[in-house]
Order: sequence, then C-alpha cells, then structure tokens
Amino acid sequence: MDGRFGDISPAGRLAEPAEGISPEELALAARNHGLPLEALRYDLTPPGLHYVLVHYDIPAAREDDWRLTVGGGVRTPLTLDMAALRSFPAVTQRVTMECAGNGRARLTPRPVSQPWLVEAVGTAEWTGVPLRVLLAEAGVRPAAVEAVFRGADHGVERGVEQDYRWSLPLAVAAGGDPEVLVAYAMNGLPLPPQHGHPLRLVVPGWYGMAQVKWLREITLTDTPFTGFQQTVAYRYRQRAGEPGEPVTRIAPRALMIPPGFPDFMSRTRVVRPGPVPLEGRAWSGLAPVTKAEVSTDCGRSWRAAELAPPDGNDRAWRGWRASWTAEPGRHVLSARATDAEGNTQPLAQPWNRGGFGNNLVQRITVHCLPDD
Amino acid sequence: MDGRFGDISPAGRLAEPAEGISPEELALAARNHGLPLEALRYDLTPPGLHYVLVHYDIPAAREDDWRLTVGGGVRTPLTLDMAALRSFPAVTQRVTMECAGNGRARLTPRPVSQPWLVEAVGTAEWTGVPLRVLLAEAGVRPAAVEAVFRGADHGVERGVEQDYRWSLPLAVAAGGDPEVLVAYAMNGLPLPPQHGHPLRLVVPGWYGMAQVKWLREITLTDTPFTGFQQTVAYRYRQRAGEPGEPVTRIAPRALMIPPGFPDFMSRTRVVRPGPVPLEGRAWSGLAPVTKAEVSTDCGRSWRAAELAPPDGNDRAWRGWRASWTAEPGRHVLSARATDAEGNTQPLAQPWNRGGFGNNLVQRITVHCLPDD
Repeated sequence: MDGRFGDISPAGRLAEPAEGISPEELALAARNHGLPLEALRYDLTPPGLHYVLVHYDIPAAREDDWRLTVGGGVRTPLTLDMAALRSFPAVTQRVTMECAGNGRARLTPRPVSQPWLVEAVGTAEWTGVPLRVLLAEAGVRPAAVEAVFRGADHGVERGVEQDYRWSLPLAVAAGGDPEVLVAYAMNGLPLPPQHGHPLRLVVPGWYGMAQVKWLREITLTDTPFTGFQQTVAYRYRQRAGEPGEPVTRIAPRALMIPPGFPDFMSRTRVVRPGPVPLEGRAWSGLAPVTKAEVSTDCGRSWRAAELAPPDGNDRAWRGWRASWTAEPGRHVLSARATDAEGNTQPLAQPWNRGGFGNNLVQRITVHCLPDD
Repeated sequence: MDGRFGDISPAGRLAEPAEGISPEELALAARNHGLPLEALRYDLTPPGLHYVLVHYDIPAAREDDWRLTVGGGVRTPLTLDMAALRSFPAVTQRVTMECAGNGRARLTPRPVSQPWLVEAVGTAEWTGVPLRVLLAEAGVRPAAVEAVFRGADHGVERGVEQDYRWSLPLAVAAGGDPEVLVAYAMNGLPLPPQHGHPLRLVVPGWYGMAQVKWLREITLTDTPFTGFQQTVAYRYRQRAGEPGEPVTRIAPRALMIPPGFPDFMSRTRVVRPGPVPLEGRAWSGLAPVTKAEVSTDCGRSWRAAELAPPDGNDRAWRGWRASWTAEPGRHVLSARATDAEGNTQPLAQPWNRGGFGNNLVQRITVHCLPDD
C-alpha cells in the first residue's frame, strides 16, 4: 500500500444489499466485454466476440521493436525479438479461456469489481512457441521453483503500482501437459491489441489471470513469487485478511445458447410453442468434460444432453445438444457440466470475497407465447 | 403493443434518483461494448475495439446463401447475392460511427437502456457498393419518398415484435453526399459477425441506429415509414407521448485519450508532475470539425488544441493534441469539439427521455503524484 495514491485506489469491498452496479463497475463493463451468448455457436470465437478483461490500459505495443527477455535463474539469459520467436517450430492449440471473475455479479453479496454475469469466456486457436522450448534454450538452473511473467500493462490497484505480473510453478511452466505457449497469433492472425499484441502467454485450463498479455519478461525465481495479483488479488477467501487459496484452473461450466429471440430491455427470451432445439458448450480446466445435462424446470430435474464426439481438442469447449418441447408460459432453463474427475456445477452460489470461480448453473428465463 | 408479451417487454422508463445500474442494463453492457479510450490512438479501430450495439441477437448469417432484395417503388425489383454485389465497382470510405445513446448513463435522471458512458464510437474503413448505384439499377419510381432497410436481427421491444428496420429519406438514400454504402468489408476484411456479416448499411455522419446490420431488404415507399425504431424509439422527447424530433446525424464530440495510467477499480488516472502530452479525436456528423479545445481546470478555461492536417477523410474523426504541465493534486481534464457550422458541446447535460445525442463534454479525473 502506497499513501501517494490517497483515496483514488480503494481497497476491495462488497456491495451493500440494495446497491446497484456502481459507476466504476459500469466503467469496467463498458470497456471489457463478454461473449454474446449466441456466439457460442462458433467453434472458434472471432476476436471481437471473445471475452476481454484488461486490468489497466491496452499498451501501445508494436511488433517491430518488441523484445522478450528470459532471465533470472537460467544459464543463458535470452533477449528475443519477434523474428527470433517465429524461428522456433510453431505449435497451435485450441483453448477455451475464462475469466476467474466470471459469474461475480450474480453473487450475493456482490464483490465490487468487473461485474461479469456468465459471459466471460471464449475459444480461440493460439499459435506460438512452447514455453518449455524457450526454457530449455535458456537452461533452467536447479534452484528455480517458479517462472514469473511480466506484461507491459501498467497501473495501480489497491494502492500498489505495478506492471501486471503472474507466476507459474516451474513444473507447469516447463511441462508439456498443458502445453504452455508464448503465443503471437490468434485464429491464424497476429494478436489483436486487446488480446496482447504482439505476444502473450497461453496456459490451457487456467483462468485468465494466468494468461499474461503484452508479455515482455520471464524471470525464473528460487522462491515463490509474492506479487500483488498472486498473493493479494486472486485468492479464494471467505474473510478479508486470511491468506486464502490460490486461484488456478477453470472449474466446470456449461452454457446454453439462449433459444428463441430476446426482448431488448429485459433480455427475457421468447419462443413459440413446440419443439425448441437446445444447444451450447461445456468445458472444465480440471479434466475433460464427460457429461452435460439440461433442466427445463428451474433445476428441479435434469436430463443428459448429447455431447459432440471428441475431436482431439481437449483444452477447448465441447458442444452439446438436447431437445425440448415448449409449452405456453414461463420457463427457466439451465445447463450443467461434469468432468472426468467428477467436478460439477453447484445449484447454490460458491461465494468468496473476490467473486472467483462462481460456476453456479446458468438460468435463462424463457417466455413461451400462447398457441396461435 | 402486444399483450402476448406480458411483463417481459417493459415500457421505457427513467431510473429512480438513487437507483444504480440494474441487472438488465448490466446484461446489455456485458454483451455490447465501447471503445477503450486508449484505442483512440488508432486511426482505424480494430473490430474488437470498435463500439458494438446489437439490439437483439447476432443472426447466424452466412455469406454463401445471403440475398439482398431491392423492391417496393422500383421499376425492376432486384435480388442480389454477394457475388452480384461484389461485381459493382467498390467504394471504400473511412467513417466514424457513434451510438445515438452514447453518454446516456451520465444523464440525470438516467434513461434505462444500454448504459453508455462516453465510449460508444469507432472509426473503420467500410467497402461496398454505393446505395445510389443499386437504386439506379432498380429504377426508383417518381412516387417514392423513403427507402426502408430491414436487417435479419429479430426481437421484441416495448411489446413490438420486429425485424430491426430503419428508413432514410430518398434524397439521402439516393444522394452522393454522404455516400451511403451497402458494405461487405470492414478494414479490408469481410464484416465480423457483430458488425453485420455479411452485409450492412453505412450512412456516414448519422448515428448508429441508421447503420442497419445484416441487411437483407430495401423497400422504396410512397409514404414515410412509421416503424417502431423510427417513430417510437429514436426520438428526442422531453415528455413521454409527445411526437418528438427524429434522431438523425451525429452531434460534435471530442474525446481525450486518458493520460498516465489508471487505478483498476476507480478508473482514476495517475500522472507524474511535469509535461503530459494530451491527445485525442474530434468529430461531427453535421459539418467538418474546425476546432478542438482542452480544459485542465474542470471546464473553467479553455485553450485551442492543434488539429491534425486535413487528410481527405471528411467523414472520420480528426486527431488533435495539446500540451499540459501537471502539478501535484487533483485535476479534471476535458476536451470540446466545434464544427464548421458552429455546433459545439454543452457544459450542461442536453437531457431527453431516450438519452440520445448527449454530447456533454468528457471529464477525466487525474491524480498527479507528489514530486519525487
């Protein structure tokens, strides 16, 4: 904490019971954005529909003078320009990314921060160099325990001025499962500015806070990193001040493409009586998805949806579909994912002070019109 | 109004004095998004940073079976596929677009709808066929007075089920100033889904409600169009029920790139003492911008900024810059645009029930740190 920032850099807080979304939360919601849920229809999310969260500003980064350094506990420190990075064999992976704060705005009480409902997700094909290849090139010294990643995005948060930084245990950073990428392309094109142009980290299966954008420095350290994002911000805590558990991998979630058409203002869905196909996507960063279920009665009963056949993209969402015959009146539809380790989604909110990992099942209110 | 929609399709309303942003407004803010203001640095806004407002859902539109019809009061009705549209000589124009509701969430009382602050803007190069060329091909009958444009986006709004539709007076639709385009490319690539893939209208100088996306039908009419968006939604009204004036062209606005770096939560900007370059963009749909001014004392005094030289893109924003020497403490920065017809931005809110055309000057709170 740094007194120079006075009252402009507030501590974390919970909203009061009747408090609507504040102007500051709205300012975040107006610049960051989620996936419009009908865009779940695309296997690969176009960049402008993929969720984006930028903590500070999008840096004015240019590819032609960008340098990535690899230093700290290595035998041969590296300084790599983009041409050098492109000279390594390229790997492309399809990855579903999700913000750790997805679902935060549905919590009671609501942690005041970026107010996501359920839409902070997207899937893209990322191309780059495996991080383990760069680490092997530099030669990691035996004492190293973590790799710390620094982005060019700079700001202040709860009184701490910082470049955005995040660390991974060495076993994850240097391992091949998941294959961590230093990525320079998204869906076959150079990274867009908001997704880290010209270079970012991609850590399949982990929440977004690990996917460091505008990546310019990798430092191997002999002790665990104690930076702000790692030890203050992204922790599962029930009470302020407790150490909490670290936020790491993505909990399972299924989302349904809202059927029918919307009312502009209430966002309630409208369908006509009769057969209504239901479809969506399901994913988990903990293990492959093995089951998707739907409920059309507000979560009282569930039935299995048909999962799309495996296509080898184990780090990306999996499609599912189910049928439903709509009858006039009001309905609440839900979907639920379960993975190979038995992790699933709760029907009651998994609350914590940061509003992380809230994978409470989605609820879509549908108004079925009377018979014609 | 259609009773079948019951209470899911509410009438327009104003927020109560102490009412925060509602869950429904947040749902709109989470899917639609503005331009992160640092992205004013780009002459051309990348698609994922350009503002997007989608009234209903993004349609599942495919280029290979898309058809545009031109009918109604014409001698030769046309049905054009994308290949036919591409066979006409292509025109490319750089155009600044802005949502008519930009600034709505800063109004008191606040009209409840998409809650924009100041960021609903973007500039792109749009490529397509001039509308006047298509109308000449079809042969407009003498009795025609308007052209009505229908998109494929479908929903319900204040009880009215509809495809999104908007009309232009024939003189605008068939004229060459502005050059109205039926556009199939944005910044040299096919339109992204959220910007109207595969076809949209581009009406330079008009607010976003005229830029019909997912365009599939043009109908020439002998009487003025009385559709929902034209006669109910997009009107300047002081009181409910009065006819009001139509919302048409873009009022002048200047925006500044927020200097320094932000606090994550308060979004307050932080700078260090000393010279701070100020820069931004200015535009008007009414006439070319002829003046940009800045204030660093909360709007009490103003001085001229330096405008970028004219570059022939009269329908796009114009860059400006100014210098400022920051001193420790709190400052409020503003910018203001004036156009060749003397239109400028107010220092008090120009309120109306729909929250349209609110070009109140931007205010950026800056915290300048103490001397080191």
